[in-house]
Amino acid sequence: MVGGGSDAFIGAIHRRAAFMDNQIELVCGCFSINPEISLSSGRSYFLPDNRIYSTWQEMIQAEAALPEGERMDFVTIVTPNRFHYEPAMAALDAGFDVVIDKPMTLTLEEALSLRDKVYETGRTLALTHVYSAYPAVKEIRARIARGDLGTVRRVFVEYSQGWLSERIELKGNNNAVWRSDPKQSGKGGCVGDIGTHAWHLTEYVTGAKVTEVCADLLRVAEGRAVDDDACAFLRYDAGFTGLLQATQVAVGEENNLRLRVYGQKCGVEWWQQQPNILYIKWPDRPVEEVRVGSGNAYLSDEAKWNIRTPGGHPEGFMEAFANIYRNFALTVRAKAAGEEPAVEWLDFPTVEDGVRGLQFIETMVQAGYCAEQKWHKWVEE
Amino acid sequence: MVGGGSDAFIGAIHRRAAFMDNQIELVCGCFSINPEISLSSGRSYFLPDNRIYSTWQEMIQAEAALPEGERMDFVTIVTPNRFHYEPAMAALDAGFDVVIDKPMTLTLEEALSLRDKVYETGRTLALTHVYSAYPAVKEIRARIARGDLGTVRRVFVEYSQGWLSERIELKGNNNAVWRSDPKQSGKGGCVGDIGTHAWHLTEYVTGAKVTEVCADLLRVAEGRAVDDDACAFLRYDAGFTGLLQATQVAVGEENNLRLRVYGQKCGVEWWQQQPNILYIKWPDRPVEEVRVGSGNAYLSDEAKWNIRTPGGHPEGFMEAFANIYRNFALTVRAKAAGEEPAVEWLDFPTVEDGVRGLQFIETMVQAGYCAEQKWHKWVEE
Amino acid sequence: MVGGGSDAFIGAIHRRAAFMDNQIELVCGCFSINPEISLSSGRSYFLPDNRIYSTWQEMIQAEAALPEGERMDFVTIVTPNRFHYEPAMAALDAGFDVVIDKPMTLTLEEALSLRDKVYETGRTLALTHVYSAYPAVKEIRARIARGDLGTVRRVFVEYSQGWLSERIELKGNNNAVWRSDPKQSGKGGCVGDIGTHAWHLTEYVTGAKVTEVCADLLRVAEGRAVDDDACAFLRYDAGFTGLLQATQVAVGEENNLRLRVYGQKCGVEWWQQQPNILYIKWPDRPVEEVRVGSGNAYLSDEAKWNIRTPGGHPEGFMEAFANIYRNFALTVRAKAAGEEPAVEWLDFPTVEDGVRGLQFIETMVQAGYCAEQKWHKWVEE
Amino acid sequence: MVGGGSDAFIGAIHRRAAFMDNQIELVCGCFSINPEISLSSGRSYFLPDNRIYSTWQEMIQAEAALPEGERMDFVTIVTPNRFHYEPAMAALDAGFDVVIDKPMTLTLEEALSLRDKVYETGRTLALTHVYSAYPAVKEIRARIARGDLGTVRRVFVEYSQGWLSERIELKGNNNAVWRSDPKQSGKGGCVGDIGTHAWHLTEYVTGAKVTEVCADLLRVAEGRAVDDDACAFLRYDAGFTGLLQATQVAVGEENNLRLRVYGQKCGVEWWQQQPNILYIKWPDRPVEEVRVGSGNAYLSDEAKWNIRTPGGHPEGFMEAFANIYRNFALTVRAKAAGEEPAVEWLDFPTVEDGVRGLQFIETMVQAGYCAEQKWHKWVEE
Repeated sequence: MVGGGSDAFIGAIHRRAAFMDNQIELVCGCFSINPEISLSSGRSYFLPDNRIYSTWQEMIQAEAALPEGERMDFVTIVTPNRFHYEPAMAALDAGFDVVIDKPMTLTLEEALSLRDKVYETGRTLALTHVYSAYPAVKEIRARIARGDLGTVRRVFVEYSQGWLSERIELKGNNNAVWRSDPKQSGKGGCVGDIGTHAWHLTEYVTGAKVTEVCADLLRVAEGRAVDDDACAFLRYDAGFTGLLQATQVAVGEENNLRLRVYGQKCGVEWWQQQPNILYIKWPDRPVEEVRVGSGNAYLSDEAKWNIRTPGGHPEGFMEAFANIYRNFALTVRAKAAGEEPAVEWLDFPTVEDGVRGLQFIETMVQAGYCAEQKWHKWVEE
Repeated sequence: MVGGGSDAFIGAIHRRAAFMDNQIELVCGCFSINPEISLSSGRSYFLPDNRIYSTWQEMIQAEAALPEGERMDFVTIVTPNRFHYEPAMAALDAGFDVVIDKPMTLTLEEALSLRDKVYETGRTLALTHVYSAYPAVKEIRARIARGDLGTVRRVFVEYSQGWLSERIELKGNNNAVWRSDPKQSGKGGCVGDIGTHAWHLTEYVTGAKVTEVCADLLRVAEGRAVDDDACAFLRYDAGFTGLLQATQVAVGEENNLRLRVYGQKCGVEWWQQQPNILYIKWPDRPVEEVRVGSGNAYLSDEAKWNIRTPGGHPEGFMEAFANIYRNFALTVRAKAAGEEPAVEWLDFPTVEDGVRGLQFIETMVQAGYCAEQKWHKWVEE
Repeated sequence: MVGGGSDAFIGAIHRRAAFMDNQIELVCGCFSINPEISLSSGRSYFLPDNRIYSTWQEMIQAEAALPEGERMDFVTIVTPNRFHYEPAMAALDAGFDVVIDKPMTLTLEEALSLRDKVYETGRTLALTHVYSAYPAVKEIRARIARGDLGTVRRVFVEYSQGWLSERIELKGNNNAVWRSDPKQSGKGGCVGDIGTHAWHLTEYVTGAKVTEVCADLLRVAEGRAVDDDACAFLRYDAGFTGLLQATQVAVGEENNLRLRVYGQKCGVEWWQQQPNILYIKWPDRPVEEVRVGSGNAYLSDEAKWNIRTPGGHPEGFMEAFANIYRNFALTVRAKAAGEEPAVEWLDFPTVEDGVRGLQFIETMVQAGYCAEQKWHKWVEE
Repeated sequence: MVGGGSDAFIGAIHRRAAFMDNQIELVCGCFSINPEISLSSGRSYFLPDNRIYSTWQEMIQAEAALPEGERMDFVTIVTPNRFHYEPAMAALDAGFDVVIDKPMTLTLEEALSLRDKVYETGRTLALTHVYSAYPAVKEIRARIARGDLGTVRRVFVEYSQGWLSERIELKGNNNAVWRSDPKQSGKGGCVGDIGTHAWHLTEYVTGAKVTEVCADLLRVAEGRAVDDDACAFLRYDAGFTGLLQATQVAVGEENNLRLRVYGQKCGVEWWQQQPNILYIKWPDRPVEEVRVGSGNAYLSDEAKWNIRTPGGHPEGFMEAFANIYRNFALTVRAKAAGEEPAVEWLDFPTVEDGVRGLQFIETMVQAGYCAEQKWHKWVEE
């Protein structure tokens, strides 16, 4: 693990998600830029001192030198955006698979280069677009794929937060400091941090790709260097359109992520705050409230594979996260054994999603601050 | 009453709303273009035959000829859009006050002319933008006005329906036939029918006016002559921005109208499907669930004036509608008596809202089909 | 109308409910024990002075002396419980039909005597158990009747309020004063005021009758003379059992009325705070969210007859109330015309429900304070 | 681990809950009565063959013989009720701490004996009453303890399921087979399986103890040997009363667990299907919607200690379960190190709760089938 010291938030999530299914052990790590924090963190994770490293370079080198079976199997990178690219490249070069937080890299250029590296090395890279790993979201994807909705016509996605409503980056909030600094977070603020999640969900469930956007990027909190609110009209290659709404200044909102897809036959709605319920809306019969549960026979196999408990035992964010780790772990283990991974194991975001994520940010930034031109083509590179 | 025969939907709503508070009686009407339907309808409403008319022209003429105290006090116009303007003008000319369904007229030109007539005659015109008459909406307005939210920063409004998902106008659905025919409904389809409600809510609660829009108008159902889906980024004169989303092709949605306003201090959310609840979202304390009820002392006077029942006795659409009629009735009665209407009685949409509604449609249509220009100024005339 | 002066709450509800459908006019009344309040109230309701009476005796006598077609058609009694019996008896004797608030009388003895009078005179009496008049409740009844649930097995009903949490009767709250005084409200406190509504709902929707109860009546607020909380296990003649929970000391609750019925095939749930939704719960498929709306073809005719608006236009408490008045009005008009009322018009609570209501209170009081005997038979007289 | 083979449900939950926080490793187990299933299960959990045992007796003996630091630290017992007592006694005797599923034993006699053993050995026993481990439940407890509610007056708890609506035990459903067989599950059916959870919640949050019950136990599904529905009026030593409702025949319900406590000042409501929200209901201000999140400063320290994610990242059943394991692990590690465990680590159900659970079942069974006596004292032994 690179990053994820005891002073970080997302690292703990990654560890719990990785451990939950007993498929993954933490064997080593460089948990902080600060070697002392790295050491104390590693010890608190029950690691021996010789597997706690001061730099990620050191870690990759030392681990690669260990005998097979003893060295780590893959690297998880949970650092701020600007520290994604280099350790990922190095890990791939050293023969390790990689799990990486989104957005995948700081720039589109890095993303393209990382993609080339993945192709070149043949290794596996998983990107933690966690929301697409909720069972209910997978159920939507399965239903759209098998035609339950008929032709898709409209997609609405919204991701609202309020925690950046004030300029807390000026008060030393670490999460806010790097996210509002383009050098550390990249060109996108809100659009990169949560807009990418929202956009990814729409492509994940529909299987279609955005081709054009008309966007409005805002810096609502005065003086902020990056957008803290972003909305867009979207056009998809499959012929339908969408509306994306992301904001981090909707004061009082926690993590209000809502996805709706309307087809010709019915519509579906999912809301992350009640992640185990899916609403199917019909023109001529009652709304159906689909409930996630391992015993609910009417669910798709794709959803069921990613459910751990019977209905009524709420699963949450950590279990969604764990789905990515478990599917990734099963995949890399199969590959290592020279076997073909099962189709359902391959259901996690890849380097391709990572590249498109950076393209999305680039496109949105170009479109969002432009005062004249209405529609902007998807930026490839 | 003009329109509202036994074969119409909205007329019955108007009558119930008007009767509910015992302030208004139905004394005469021309209820249909078809004189037979008008007659049978009038009889079923317990009117004597001599007060049931075959044309609205006849009605206005005959009523105006009756002695004061016997003739009708005002005219309610509940016909399709294209039949609003003429009877309204005639009624005003004949000295009657007017209640009229939105959008106020077929064209912006008519709207401006009707406004002039209202000014010229000094009569009262109420427009039934019913959603702004819910007590919870009035509570939002009061809270914004007194500064509870601090500076407003973002307004999100959505109005989703699904009933025009298929081209039911081709199957003879009357409500769909005239709404999808520009000659009968005007330039706007969805944008006029429900987009105006959504837009009006935002101006009503914030007191600010839209100055620019970037819009996307869609004809999702193939071959439809007017938009059936409309969304827009909005800029307001008070400096904040908004997002408006209206659709009639979100299959399975009934009347999904949701309004959110985020200020610097807190955000508010209201949803028409649970109209008696208002959510106040704070950055640092629990969400507050404000419940409409005549005994809830913490509510504003503006809201309380428009509530009829103690908490827990749900009020609905009809009571909101009735608020417009009651406030209008109290106003015209006061004016007739040469008295100044109380401020809370004047709280109903007027000819000014009607003019802005047509301007909104015009602006949205210009912006929504334009492929190049991003932002469009509000169209005054 | 007897009672319902400008200082009363429920009278205004009755009037609005009665007026809404244009079937009923207010023609006379005695609105208060205080003649001055009666007069000023009547004037504010636009009545001529000669139809505003100082006592209900005077009113019944004077109206009965008026020529047919001019005199009132029926009497509505909206006074506190102890003033129900005498005006109702007198009205029936004078040939008037009667609408009366629940509980029907102060004592079971009065109720039985009133029932005899109704039989003797052949007049019509409607009891305003309003919750059974919501369309969604009628939908439950229709579904149970046609076997959708299979054999009913368990009924759960809860009605929670919090307004009597403190002894506000000591602070002069009128509604609390008479309700907590057995001489004015009868033996039951909470059990009579809201327990009867809850019990009535269960008999209304299932068509079964309670035969035995095991109850616990509580006086939670110290020193109160009547129960302010009542719960009971119920046995029904159809073989199933129920649980009833009513309280007026659940601080913070407004009017939390929830009904659930579980059969062998599915369960149904309804909640008065969202009265237009009904949940159908299946063992092997998604929960169905049935939405009340005049255009929803899948609803029963019984429900549809009692709906005024298309889906998405929330109906509320007042519309439910109005259903009783409209059905009653259509029934008495038909009877007056010597015609057979339609089956759906007869769907309102009658004197029989009123008698059972008083029996319910009597049974609950006997059972609820008994420390030894577990089960108590239904008290017939 | 005793039990929890690959064919069992709850074992997987226990493992995930135990692993999640990186405090606990699975080192050995006897996973099934069937040695082959035990072996294959153990291998799939990545255990070496020599730590996979055929009987729990063998496991305890063999592990106890291993050097300290190598042998297991504690035993988790996740077998059906009748196989709880013996392995627990043996484990304690061999010096191991114990985690055990509820109800703790098959009989009250066993429970008392197990309690004596815990006292005698000084070991730690944790009972997995998982619902009391949700952060929101801990928040309720903290608020009641610090007096936010004032004097508690009424407690309502409901736990409804529908999965035993049909006699699926006749169709070979394993979970149903042992639960409906008194020899395997004990005297209680529903009352033991889920009634104990509901009862435990009330004692956990209020700190009070039940002293008397008036109960009704039902066998709704014809021919079932144990109750499948149980409700009771409860009296607590602190002077308040409660209502408990548990059922497994509410067809269509998954795991509908709802807890409400009303004090003099306010009421609280929690619902397991939305476990991260808590409603605080006030007499004179808006309902507060308290949201669980590590950053929500207004939450109690007791709740915060048991939260892993910031607001808006839903935690679920597994995280609640993990709280028990983590608190238990920290406690036993501290004890092993001769240190005093922190107060918040000791927050998990103990052998005392286990004894009271069996007493609850015994009391309910005595009261629930009795036709005459209304109130039954709590059964001590």
